[in-house]
Amino acid sequence: MNIETSVKPHDRLAAYLRGDMEKVSALIAERMASEHAPRIPEVTAHLVGAGGKRLRPMLVLAAARMLGYAGPYHVHLAATVEFIHTATLLHDDVVDESKQRRGRPTANLLWDNQSSVLVGDYLFARSFQLMTEPGSMRVMRILSNAAATIAEGEVLQLTAAQNLATDEGVYLQVVRGKTAALFSAATEVGGVIAGADDATVQALFDYGDALGIAFQIVDDLLDYQGESGATGKNVGDDFRERKLTLPVIKAVAKADAEERAFWVRTIEKGRQEEGDLEHALGLLDKHRTLAATQQDALGWAAKAKAALAPLPDHEVKGMLLDIADYVVSRIS
Amino acid sequence: MNIETSVKPHDRLAAYLRGDMEKVSALIAERMASEHAPRIPEVTAHLVGAGGKRLRPMLVLAAARMLGYAGPYHVHLAATVEFIHTATLLHDDVVDESKQRRGRPTANLLWDNQSSVLVGDYLFARSFQLMTEPGSMRVMRILSNAAATIAEGEVLQLTAAQNLATDEGVYLQVVRGKTAALFSAATEVGGVIAGADDATVQALFDYGDALGIAFQIVDDLLDYQGESGATGKNVGDDFRERKLTLPVIKAVAKADAEERAFWVRTIEKGRQEEGDLEHALGLLDKHRTLAATQQDALGWAAKAKAALAPLPDHEVKGMLLDIADYVVSRIS
Repeated sequence: MNIETSVKPHDRLAAYLRGDMEKVSALIAERMASEHAPRIPEVTAHLVGAGGKRLRPMLVLAAARMLGYAGPYHVHLAATVEFIHTATLLHDDVVDESKQRRGRPTANLLWDNQSSVLVGDYLFARSFQLMTEPGSMRVMRILSNAAATIAEGEVLQLTAAQNLATDEGVYLQVVRGKTAALFSAATEVGGVIAGADDATVQALFDYGDALGIAFQIVDDLLDYQGESGATGKNVGDDFRERKLTLPVIKAVAKADAEERAFWVRTIEKGRQEEGDLEHALGLLDKHRTLAATQQDALGWAAKAKAALAPLPDHEVKGMLLDIADYVVSRIS
Repeated sequence: MNIETSVKPHDRLAAYLRGDMEKVSALIAERMASEHAPRIPEVTAHLVGAGGKRLRPMLVLAAARMLGYAGPYHVHLAATVEFIHTATLLHDDVVDESKQRRGRPTANLLWDNQSSVLVGDYLFARSFQLMTEPGSMRVMRILSNAAATIAEGEVLQLTAAQNLATDEGVYLQVVRGKTAALFSAATEVGGVIAGADDATVQALFDYGDALGIAFQIVDDLLDYQGESGATGKNVGDDFRERKLTLPVIKAVAKADAEERAFWVRTIEKGRQEEGDLEHALGLLDKHRTLAATQQDALGWAAKAKAALAPLPDHEVKGMLLDIADYVVSRIS
């Protein structure tokens, strides 16, 4: 294996986009400032400084650069996407009463729920200011639609998560909303700002959509088989929070009466006891649902790669293909 | 007193704008729907159905109509403003842990904090979708700036509210953010969409700004002297929530050592005991700060009216002048 291929594709893309990403970071720092309320940059910096992978803004930049866009507005759109993502994380941690994010205590724990809700609102508003700057109605429509779809997906998750009737179709709808909508909006606006034709914009959307779905399925799978160090989360968090994700949905579909009663008690009614997580893991193992979930994730990664097939060869295209593999590499 | 003048100005304006407001209501109902997440219209309808005065959307319509705009986009902008307002209320009630709003239990009590946070996010996103539809960059800039200013004001309030160093200047900044920003954006975009000249747009902004400040000061005053039935809130809520509003800020400025120790204990440290609210009311009375706060509100209402002076006579202008009086009539 030569050095070139041993470097993670995400890091190769980051290196390729370094100049642009520095501009994105500078713009984020500038726009998260608040003359009157120092709490805002404090909370935002805690989350932004924790070093997420910044995959979403990179997708905007990558799509735009792959199609020959010379700037400057891909930077604004990348920052827009990162602000929407950060706002969503702040609100998610309040909704989930999370205590850890990216291996650090959450903002709602370090400050309070109030700060997380209101600073999230501020970042949403900032994202809307940013998205107007390129002056493209189409870009604004895509990004404001994505913001609505994200919130809709989160609300749907709230009502579907503890309902054993939730099937794989509803799960996919939730995932498309809460995760894939921002991925696909990121790649789509990258294409739109570069003036790409409709077929290319559609291909970019499809890539982002499938990549986002693969990403979320991997996340849900790692919740049952990952390690706290790798994910910044604790194994079984979703079970304890009574979130019906794909591994459990598949196990519920195959459950006998006794197993069903177990899921009703632990997920629907939330009456969990010592040893329940271990029992749940045993049921996932019995029905081989972790393996089946893994196959689904690999399938979506393959779809993401297939979507890019019609696009001409380009250094960045190769990296995007590799990123689809990389997203699922944590589970394969 | 003839019938004409005995009807509240707000109701006269509502009657004048009835056709437009019906379109706004229909648009709100259409856009708060969610194909996938029925929880969204449930929560929204609870709040929208509680019958707020809809003053903010009426301000958009009034400004646009006064300047001869024939439509249709003033309806979209009115709905935008109402969505931003509703989203803000949902999040405020989470932040304040409120139990009552418009005389009914709050959404966070009837459902949960999660629903209030996420449905609020959905309405924010919907408001941004709506504001793009007229296709005016200037309108989008005004409204997205207002959304950022609102969130900034709320965060500032969070950090300033329990700090006895908060003076009237900081209070005004908070009020401009959390309340006046949406009033002034409403009147301003009404003028912009109607194609008004810069001086007229500025006059409309100034009217909305002063009206919003008067409105919030009245609200803060009523918290200490209103009745639960009239305001849908309980007397002393702000004191119990340790919110430093104008009547208390004025009392702190005049406090002797013993009184200051009382405010430090009850507001800064939050160690409140039986009888503290009565003692606080006694101090407001001693320093006559409720009367002084009332004077400030009347002063802002006068400024609102003065702002409209340069505008030509119009039926709607008369109603807007009367509304400035009406806003402060609850306290005079």
